Amino acid sequence: MNILFIMYDQLRFDYLSCAGHPHLQTPNFDRVAEMGVRFTNAYVQSPICGSSRMSYYTGRYPSSHGAQWNNFPLRVGELTLGDHLRKLDMDCWLIGKTHMHADAEGMERLGLDPDSVIGARQAECGFDVFIRDDGLWAQGIAGYYDESRSPYNEYLKEKGYTDSDNPWADHANAGVKERNKIASGWMYENADRPAHIHEADSETAWLTSRTIDFMKQAKGKWCAHVSYIKPHWPYIVAAPYHNMFGPDHVPAPLRDEVEQEDTHPVFKGYMDNQVGQAFQRDEVRQKVIPAYMGLIKQCDDHLGRILDYLEETGEIKDTMIVLTSDHGDYLGDHWMGEKSLFHDQSAKVPMIIYDPRRPANATRGTTCDALVESLDIAATFVEAAGGDVPAHILEGRSLLPLLNGERPKWREFLISEFDYSASPVGGTLAEEYCLKPKDCRLFMVFDGRWKMMHAEGGFRPMLFDLQNDPEEFHDLGKTDAHADVIARLYDYLAQWGRRMSQRVTKSDEDIENMRGKAGFKGVLPFMYDGSEVPRPLIKHYVGKAPKLPDAKD
Amino acid sequence: MNILFIMYDQLRFDYLSCAGHPHLQTPNFDRVAEMGVRFTNAYVQSPICGSSRMSYYTGRYPSSHGAQWNNFPLRVGELTLGDHLRKLDMDCWLIGKTHMHADAEGMERLGLDPDSVIGARQAECGFDVFIRDDGLWAQGIAGYYDESRSPYNEYLKEKGYTDSDNPWADHANAGVKERNKIASGWMYENADRPAHIHEADSETAWLTSRTIDFMKQAKGKWCAHVSYIKPHWPYIVAAPYHNMFGPDHVPAPLRDEVEQEDTHPVFKGYMDNQVGQAFQRDEVRQKVIPAYMGLIKQCDDHLGRILDYLEETGEIKDTMIVLTSDHGDYLGDHWMGEKSLFHDQSAKVPMIIYDPRRPANATRGTTCDALVESLDIAATFVEAAGGDVPAHILEGRSLLPLLNGERPKWREFLISEFDYSASPVGGTLAEEYCLKPKDCRLFMVFDGRWKMMHAEGGFRPMLFDLQNDPEEFHDLGKTDAHADVIARLYDYLAQWGRRMSQRVTKSDEDIENMRGKAGFKGVLPFMYDGSEVPRPLIKHYVGKAPKLPDAKD
Repeated sequence: MNILFIMYDQLRFDYLSCAGHPHLQTPNFDRVAEMGVRFTNAYVQSPICGSSRMSYYTGRYPSSHGAQWNNFPLRVGELTLGDHLRKLDMDCWLIGKTHMHADAEGMERLGLDPDSVIGARQAECGFDVFIRDDGLWAQGIAGYYDESRSPYNEYLKEKGYTDSDNPWADHANAGVKERNKIASGWMYENADRPAHIHEADSETAWLTSRTIDFMKQAKGKWCAHVSYIKPHWPYIVAAPYHNMFGPDHVPAPLRDEVEQEDTHPVFKGYMDNQVGQAFQRDEVRQKVIPAYMGLIKQCDDHLGRILDYLEETGEIKDTMIVLTSDHGDYLGDHWMGEKSLFHDQSAKVPMIIYDPRRPANATRGTTCDALVESLDIAATFVEAAGGDVPAHILEGRSLLPLLNGERPKWREFLISEFDYSASPVGGTLAEEYCLKPKDCRLFMVFDGRWKMMHAEGGFRPMLFDLQNDPEEFHDLGKTDAHADVIARLYDYLAQWGRRMSQRVTKSDEDIENMRGKAGFKGVLPFMYDGSEVPRPLIKHYVGKAPKLPDAKD
Repeated sequence: MNILFIMYDQLRFDYLSCAGHPHLQTPNFDRVAEMGVRFTNAYVQSPICGSSRMSYYTGRYPSSHGAQWNNFPLRVGELTLGDHLRKLDMDCWLIGKTHMHADAEGMERLGLDPDSVIGARQAECGFDVFIRDDGLWAQGIAGYYDESRSPYNEYLKEKGYTDSDNPWADHANAGVKERNKIASGWMYENADRPAHIHEADSETAWLTSRTIDFMKQAKGKWCAHVSYIKPHWPYIVAAPYHNMFGPDHVPAPLRDEVEQEDTHPVFKGYMDNQVGQAFQRDEVRQKVIPAYMGLIKQCDDHLGRILDYLEETGEIKDTMIVLTSDHGDYLGDHWMGEKSLFHDQSAKVPMIIYDPRRPANATRGTTCDALVESLDIAATFVEAAGGDVPAHILEGRSLLPLLNGERPKWREFLISEFDYSASPVGGTLAEEYCLKPKDCRLFMVFDGRWKMMHAEGGFRPMLFDLQNDPEEFHDLGKTDAHADVIARLYDYLAQWGRRMSQRVTKSDEDIENMRGKAGFKGVLPFMYDGSEVPRPLIKHYVGKAPKLPDAKD
């Protein structure tokens, strides 16, 4: 079996028709959901691209892998999906985005040449690269955000988009306005214009074509991480997707005045930041959300191309498909934009898994509300590839039992983390509350009903009761009324904090096999006279005393 | 300045005359204490050789470096003292024991050749090896406990100890009994015999000579880790040290019947194990403790040789000296033998530091009761070598301010850990209580007065009040009477559990410098029309729209 691990960037859990969106039809997502299982309680380990992805790729919490923010390098030697799958004779390919930043200092310290196979895999988060393109070719007075080469920009130039140095910015992510001026997708006012590009050349179309190219030539057993930049901002989309949706399709923002009262300082920091302020404006939501929906509709159509290819070739019978995202998008809900905190709009993601094998027939077309963490994906793939999950390294659990309709005892809570130390809000709060970078961290504990957010630095917790307040408007951490619930969730967090996450060189099995073995190697530090152990164990320590040489200098 | 980082193995904090031992005179330890500061509240991060040492060498908690038991490999790439000091132009040499087990699998995965300089340092925990000899050449039916070469055995053979294959076992750690039979030091009944070796050839003498050899030839700035195996078992010592002390010098065991009542299951497991049972016998203590004292007395005499050398050469004015241990030895106290739990006999160590520089004049000959963790040593050395402590990697604090008589706000609690999953007691308890290896873990939280031990696996905590019960006989965790203290210490443990330990590729300074910089690289995901930022920031996103090429296939 091969694995197609498809990730969209910033795709909200509820912007799919199978998840109940009232206006957005996504028949191809729905088609996979019909073939497999849609997990309705899937959360990412961190609501920020880089950190979330490193958790998907390592199967470990941000606090375990250490790459807690975009562009924090994943330290050299940290084990990844590629390491685990290649051991099982499954190749592990990348087609698209990872947000991986190599630990250049660590690689140099260990003498790893980035041009060697080992070095390249270290630098690429364990993947072999078919295409690497992170899709953020932003450009400013300090240069490019991403200084690597952009295969997508190279492609556009080959296709004749030669009138700009950065056709990603000027074509794929910009329209045209009055007097033939560029209408940059970075500005929300332009989000309703068509991108200045032929749809067939847009990022989503391009990456889909590369994915099909990959499958046509792929040999052996493989896992391919197909990783789209969209529907991530800049919010602008090529025709005909730019006007499929309009202000009538924009739901009212999920926000409540009560959220503005006695607001938790970190929440307030994000409400009040520039993107929060922007998404509080109706005209922003009315321009952006239809574009966001158009981008998703486009993703859905191109997903259809992949599914059609798999069906035409028959490979669908031998390919596991995972559809997910690295985090959501507030889109003005809770007075916020972007991601960051742990409301469902941000931390919950779509998670649809199709397993072609017979045992999964038991669950096709169903949903599953077990508490799923994004790091379960790595464990799932290891098991799908025929391996035993190395539980001393991978912190997640394989979802295969759930896909097969079993009902194993499942986790009671899940954890997500957010390190905002490097963000501008971190700077503001650090100043206001004398926080050090290590204090700029948030933890979510969610038990399926109660969701608590703990912030380091001496703040009170936030608490939501998703049973009675599914919109997460009422922060019950403002009073002591739910101290018992809060204490219970803090106990979960403490239990998690003590987890064994770094004993990566010894498995449980190794340890069980070690017990008591030192005695067979002569380590017997408990004997009075040797009668304590069977005679053969001490045979090296009895017998004739050897001759003592004469004393010399 | 150079650094002489001298470690003894299994040396109890209170078996020195400067620490108040009534019978054992250790004038050379005392001499260093007179020249420097003796820390009276210094605890190791784990009361077991390998794990404790990895914390000294990495400056990180066992849960952070992952090598939580003897021979659990320290994973490849984990930063060590050697990495930090060499950056500051200080070499880092090993003379003696580390208990390091190389991560051979990780090294192979990264293509590191153990014979290359980088590979050798990875395999040797960051040290350059002058001498590596772990001093445990035990031999049994399954072969040697340690399969590396033993420079000490080679030395003995060169010196004429050729009548045995393993002169470490048959000479240095054995005597001779009736009918010229070997009297193995592995059996306590032989502990009062002289070891069958010339004292000048014994392990402590040999390693001291190698240390002086090292200093004679050393160039440049260096830190030398001089790491003795003694007074670690086998408990037997060469003449004249074998009969300097006798049963009259053996204190009554520090144990109380109350400890046998309603005993915590893990404590009981260790009381009841073979070594615990052995040390409950008077004849064991009366044979072993005089030998243990003789071994320490011998260490003290040889420390004198090192100090004399430093004084004769004048290097004493330019050499920091640290005397410490990797853990203690119960010696029958608390009904136990060996180390393992967190009573002071096990987890507290001698910690004497002499800093030759002028600011330390303020404190010479004093003691300091600040809560010191063994991982503070790495931070101290980095600062002593002129560096800034990389607080995102090293979890300890430099002790230099304390040596200089400053009174900085200090930590409120310290943590020690013990992973007993691989021990026979782990096996027994695992069976009895259905524990998985990850449940076989203990944590100590100590705030200077209250010492709590938490055990994973659903057990109650243990609690001692060292103010009213300095002998630690009365486990206050047996009732709910101190629930408030226990809750406070659990809060400390939870706080520690959430610490930032793996963000090793980004310093706090890096992070502060990152804040808000993405905007200068064109990432501006909050603009409605561009008026939100100064004009130069959007210059790449305005201007004339580029020409769209014709649509092609």
